[in-house]
Amino acid sequence: MQQHDGPLSRLRRGHEELVLDLLRRHGPLSRAELGARCGLSRTTLYDIVGALVGNGAVVASVPDAERRRRGRPVERLALNPGAGQAIGIDLARRAVHVAAVNVAHEVVGSASRPHGPDLDLAGRIALAERMVGELAGDSLRLAALSAIGVGVVGPVTPSADGAADRERIAELLGKRFGVPVLVDNNTRLAALAESVWGTATGAQDVLYLRLSHGVGGGLVVDGALHRGAHGLSGEFGHITAVPGGPPCECGGTGCLETVASVGAVLAAHRAAGGAAADIADVTAAARAGEQPAASVLAEAGRHVGAALAAVCNAVGPGVVVIGGELAAAGEALTEPVRQALTAGLMPVSRPLVDLRPAALGEVGAALGGIALVLHRSPLLSRYPSHASQEGQGDGPGHDDA
Amino acid sequence: MQQHDGPLSRLRRGHEELVLDLLRRHGPLSRAELGARCGLSRTTLYDIVGALVGNGAVVASVPDAERRRRGRPVERLALNPGAGQAIGIDLARRAVHVAAVNVAHEVVGSASRPHGPDLDLAGRIALAERMVGELAGDSLRLAALSAIGVGVVGPVTPSADGAADRERIAELLGKRFGVPVLVDNNTRLAALAESVWGTATGAQDVLYLRLSHGVGGGLVVDGALHRGAHGLSGEFGHITAVPGGPPCECGGTGCLETVASVGAVLAAHRAAGGAAADIADVTAAARAGEQPAASVLAEAGRHVGAALAAVCNAVGPGVVVIGGELAAAGEALTEPVRQALTAGLMPVSRPLVDLRPAALGEVGAALGGIALVLHRSPLLSRYPSHASQEGQGDGPGHDDA
Repeated sequence: MQQHDGPLSRLRRGHEELVLDLLRRHGPLSRAELGARCGLSRTTLYDIVGALVGNGAVVASVPDAERRRRGRPVERLALNPGAGQAIGIDLARRAVHVAAVNVAHEVVGSASRPHGPDLDLAGRIALAERMVGELAGDSLRLAALSAIGVGVVGPVTPSADGAADRERIAELLGKRFGVPVLVDNNTRLAALAESVWGTATGAQDVLYLRLSHGVGGGLVVDGALHRGAHGLSGEFGHITAVPGGPPCECGGTGCLETVASVGAVLAAHRAAGGAAADIADVTAAARAGEQPAASVLAEAGRHVGAALAAVCNAVGPGVVVIGGELAAAGEALTEPVRQALTAGLMPVSRPLVDLRPAALGEVGAALGGIALVLHRSPLLSRYPSHASQEGQGDGPGHDDA
Repeated sequence: MQQHDGPLSRLRRGHEELVLDLLRRHGPLSRAELGARCGLSRTTLYDIVGALVGNGAVVASVPDAERRRRGRPVERLALNPGAGQAIGIDLARRAVHVAAVNVAHEVVGSASRPHGPDLDLAGRIALAERMVGELAGDSLRLAALSAIGVGVVGPVTPSADGAADRERIAELLGKRFGVPVLVDNNTRLAALAESVWGTATGAQDVLYLRLSHGVGGGLVVDGALHRGAHGLSGEFGHITAVPGGPPCECGGTGCLETVASVGAVLAAHRAAGGAAADIADVTAAARAGEQPAASVLAEAGRHVGAALAAVCNAVGPGVVVIGGELAAAGEALTEPVRQALTAGLMPVSRPLVDLRPAALGEVGAALGGIALVLHRSPLLSRYPSHASQEGQGDGPGHDDA
């Protein structure tokens, strides 16, 4: 991401982050106290502080005690509790999810709303805007918004279908809220969210797999979302599970998605004589140990575990997180996953990989949009050239190309 | 790696790197010129420059033209061409390789020497020291050495066998040269080297696979060597290639190493009626299209390609590099690898993964040791506490734990 920044803008951002970090840890400080702690020149510090006050991240005030003293009053600088807010939006398959955090990275609100399959992009964005507005009424000061991270369905690469949609999303939301808009694949964002706020909080190397209508996931590597050279990492659903197996939507054959997606599980359930049901019924039946649901989930789980083992031997994550509708089966899914994963892991690695269910549920990707914003820069809006470049909506995948 | 540093030491290192970078790009500068370009306070800049001059990274001198002028002469600061040198050592299975670079990251020398299987660790280290001494006689000023990176055989994790050996290596070399010693798996270092000086120079996401007596590799992710949560990434040789297949040295079954290592290829060649031969003969025969060598390499290649496809779908590298003795077969190996890799890749990714033979040969891991040093910090020796921590020889894997 950062290869477009020169060392000077990186340094400046580092200075800003240092000042914000000092104020976060020490509470309000005078300029002189800040200067003593950060090692910056007076000129540089005043410039940085001026910018932070200007964009609302920091507030300057004169304490009452100071006012009563003689001489020139000394201002105290403090984080603006209403600043640095970020919004995440997930334009999911048939629902919109939004979430918001404050400058302390605390989640201050989230909401989910399903919609029909016919709602077009403009309608979905309008819905997202209304939902953000409702959150804002409660707890957000939109004037202090620093950026918006948006999750979308499907691969996010410069060349893939959907680039035009992403540009339109970034343009519409960017105009509406006047801030940079970052777009990424929503499953990858859910991976990032699990590593920041979810079941893998604090883990530096996390593999997240989502077993839903599609099968995909994301890798967090050394604490950062990994995208791959062309924005095509995390395509776990297209690892070959059955060599020479059935055709997959992607154009390949025998992909994991053909045996471990919602559709594949429903089809296998019917083929095994199960009654017509929706996926929630099948996972509930499997959880209760009922056949054929339990066997169908176990078979899917074995394929998942084998594919995960290959990836884990290569990547070495400390935590593997499983989410999506199939995860509702609980141990009926995760136990066969664990067995196949263990069998396929190099023995020395077996005790070192921790398999866990996802924790964040349907707002995970919206939270991931926020994490994307916070990871890139807490003060993105200060860099108009950077911001406008990102506002084009090429998405992060483009930066990697 | 950097989670042990506080923001202030990170900032200081950032300042030093900025100053070095400015001198690298602009050539000699006065303190005033440096100050105008870097935005640091006079106090901070003088402090940073003083430290850089003190440790020999930067030299201060007064140009002749300046001496002839009236008034106080203005010193010019320049990179010390003899400083910042780094040495890499690969303690390979039956050979020692060493390499050295100067401050401009140019390779100034390398050497390889085979040894018998009975040479113990002390003997191998003594051999490495002699080889470094010979390089130093030509081109190195050991006084300016900033650190040594060492590659070793086998997994580098806190818990794995070999931790004691690694500590001893770090202790012996650290005492002898008086600098920090970083230890990592030599195959991972070869991966890093290919991304810095080899066939994948400049690529940010690289998968390197080495087909030798063992099968292993390394991942470069966003330009940095990836180690995984427990130092166990890059174990491509232990991805299951043949479910329920033959037992592997690792304790698993049907691993890629059981079908695509030097030993596996020689065994398959004999089983197919080939004459007893060493691996160089078999790869040469395959290259010339002779049977059964060509079929044996093709079969190994198909397994390699299938395993690589799973990893590539997950990780999304832009370049895949194949090295090790089997790579000497050229297209007789890489063409079947390419076919199986292509078949297993998600179609949208197929044109985006570039398969290449390794370029660096036997000194690759020694060069990777240098890259490890340069990537971690160009001025590691300035941080005694950091250095002594690393001098313990726990190896980088430990930092990740």
